[in-house]
Amino acid sequence: MKAFCYGVDIGGTFIKVGLFNDQGDLQSKWQFKTRKTKDDLKIIKDVADFIIQKNKELDITMEDVLGIGVGIPGAVLDNGEVLQMHNLGTGYFNLVEELHKLTGCMVKAANDANLAALGEFSSRKAKGYKSMVLVTLGTGVGGGIIINGSILTGGKGAAGEIGHILVNSDEREVCGCGKKGCLEQYASATGIVRMASRRLQESSEASILRTIKELTAKDVLDSAKAGDALAMEVVTKASEYLGIGLSHVAQTVNPEVFVIGGGVSKAGPILTDMVEEFFKQYVMDDVKDTIFELAVLGNDAGIYGGANLILNAK
Amino acid sequence: MKAFCYGVDIGGTFIKVGLFNDQGDLQSKWQFKTRKTKDDLKIIKDVADFIIQKNKELDITMEDVLGIGVGIPGAVLDNGEVLQMHNLGTGYFNLVEELHKLTGCMVKAANDANLAALGEFSSRKAKGYKSMVLVTLGTGVGGGIIINGSILTGGKGAAGEIGHILVNSDEREVCGCGKKGCLEQYASATGIVRMASRRLQESSEASILRTIKELTAKDVLDSAKAGDALAMEVVTKASEYLGIGLSHVAQTVNPEVFVIGGGVSKAGPILTDMVEEFFKQYVMDDVKDTIFELAVLGNDAGIYGGANLILNAK
Repeated sequence: MKAFCYGVDIGGTFIKVGLFNDQGDLQSKWQFKTRKTKDDLKIIKDVADFIIQKNKELDITMEDVLGIGVGIPGAVLDNGEVLQMHNLGTGYFNLVEELHKLTGCMVKAANDANLAALGEFSSRKAKGYKSMVLVTLGTGVGGGIIINGSILTGGKGAAGEIGHILVNSDEREVCGCGKKGCLEQYASATGIVRMASRRLQESSEASILRTIKELTAKDVLDSAKAGDALAMEVVTKASEYLGIGLSHVAQTVNPEVFVIGGGVSKAGPILTDMVEEFFKQYVMDDVKDTIFELAVLGNDAGIYGGANLILNAK
Repeated sequence: MKAFCYGVDIGGTFIKVGLFNDQGDLQSKWQFKTRKTKDDLKIIKDVADFIIQKNKELDITMEDVLGIGVGIPGAVLDNGEVLQMHNLGTGYFNLVEELHKLTGCMVKAANDANLAALGEFSSRKAKGYKSMVLVTLGTGVGGGIIINGSILTGGKGAAGEIGHILVNSDEREVCGCGKKGCLEQYASATGIVRMASRRLQESSEASILRTIKELTAKDVLDSAKAGDALAMEVVTKASEYLGIGLSHVAQTVNPEVFVIGGGVSKAGPILTDMVEEFFKQYVMDDVKDTIFELAVLGNDAGIYGGANLILNAK
């Protein structure tokens, strides 16, 4: 009886693996270091070996495994073709085919941000949503879009790249993507620190932030909560740009719910309430009652998404 | 043998009806005036009566009809619930149920802009696209999004409302939707005239446009093509805002192709080439090679979409 599936989240530093039952409940999870190599196939081999070993330890045969759902930090087409692997191998290979060869299992693959979105979506089954957008405010700003319960991949696997939506035509500094004025330059942890540092340099306004040596986004958010005016100004600006960026997303796909995750979202209501307020200013009436929720799965969203990629394909 | 389907496009002035064979080829088309009433059900009855009459004339029985696909100027959910009918009746009724009662046929319904998108998408079957965004530059700016061959409806039927994406935070005038700085305020026929009039008022720059009494978008576009500097400035600005708006759409859904339609698009390459150039400046590399094409079905896009809504549901 096929009663299990694996969710795998391949990151630049760690590979996370979760074993799930056929109801999508997590049974066990592990992680191991991502091998430093330019050869993507070696990474895929590591994943296969790890799963084969775990099966052995847990007395599970490959026949008991419905499939393996894998997330990677890059663009993946619906057929499993990987177009690139950021910060990892050389890109371009068919992950689905390769991992299937090594395991004999059904394999499904997706971009890691999209997979995390599917994970968060699946955890909300009871709410009956059909569409959702996950926004991850971490080092960068990631996004994943779920439509009718499935990941929206896009023509080149680039759907949901909302961190690189233009939100400020006047920006002078260049984003990691080569453009200027991307959402990621303001609403990511890096963006918040960047804005705060710039603000501190450009003014002589008093601020707790001036006493902090290596400023982090958490410092800025905590200081804003503590009533620091300059920090509050930065957080308000980040929230406004995020509200604008999400207004563009909502006018385009009109999701039922936005789920906000990532390290920056841990600041809680101070940020999300403001984002929602700004959002309402920039969307049509029909779209104003889009729901905002905080992410619930943290770093496990990817492995949950992987499992659900398999369970949805049953 | 069921060999026909009807596509119906309900507009504020006319109702267009097309009879198609089961390959989606148009056999005949007609239009009749939309009844001025606040009672939506009377409009639906007119549609049913018209189709029953046409069947009689053409010696088609209802058994030969696969279904009726209907577009309306308002938000429709996937189950046929109409949330509103702009410029028509009172809204809120189930179009699918009501028209089915009157005809006995399968009925499918969609927003008119979304249906036009499905029509344009279907006319490109040979190209093998899976995703497409139609942008209609008419009195307003409309949009429709096709993902995996189906209309993207959105949680409240408001997906693809790209005319009301914010593109200019500095706008002082209010858009029809109540917000300020919407794409529609610049890239629609009305928007182009508005921008030109404002520019003419604010400067004393010489321009052919000063000699024209009741300025139209066509005047502005023709004057730009003829080398008028002020008109060219207006068209460039419209193109830039459209490029920015479409960059937001592409970063969100990453369609394979944008199809530009509506009266303004008849200006041809002068506008579309500029839009594409601006677009490339505002999107990530992965998204830059999105294809731009002109619409081919004109005012028939809606009825083609209606037929394909039925044929896709077969």
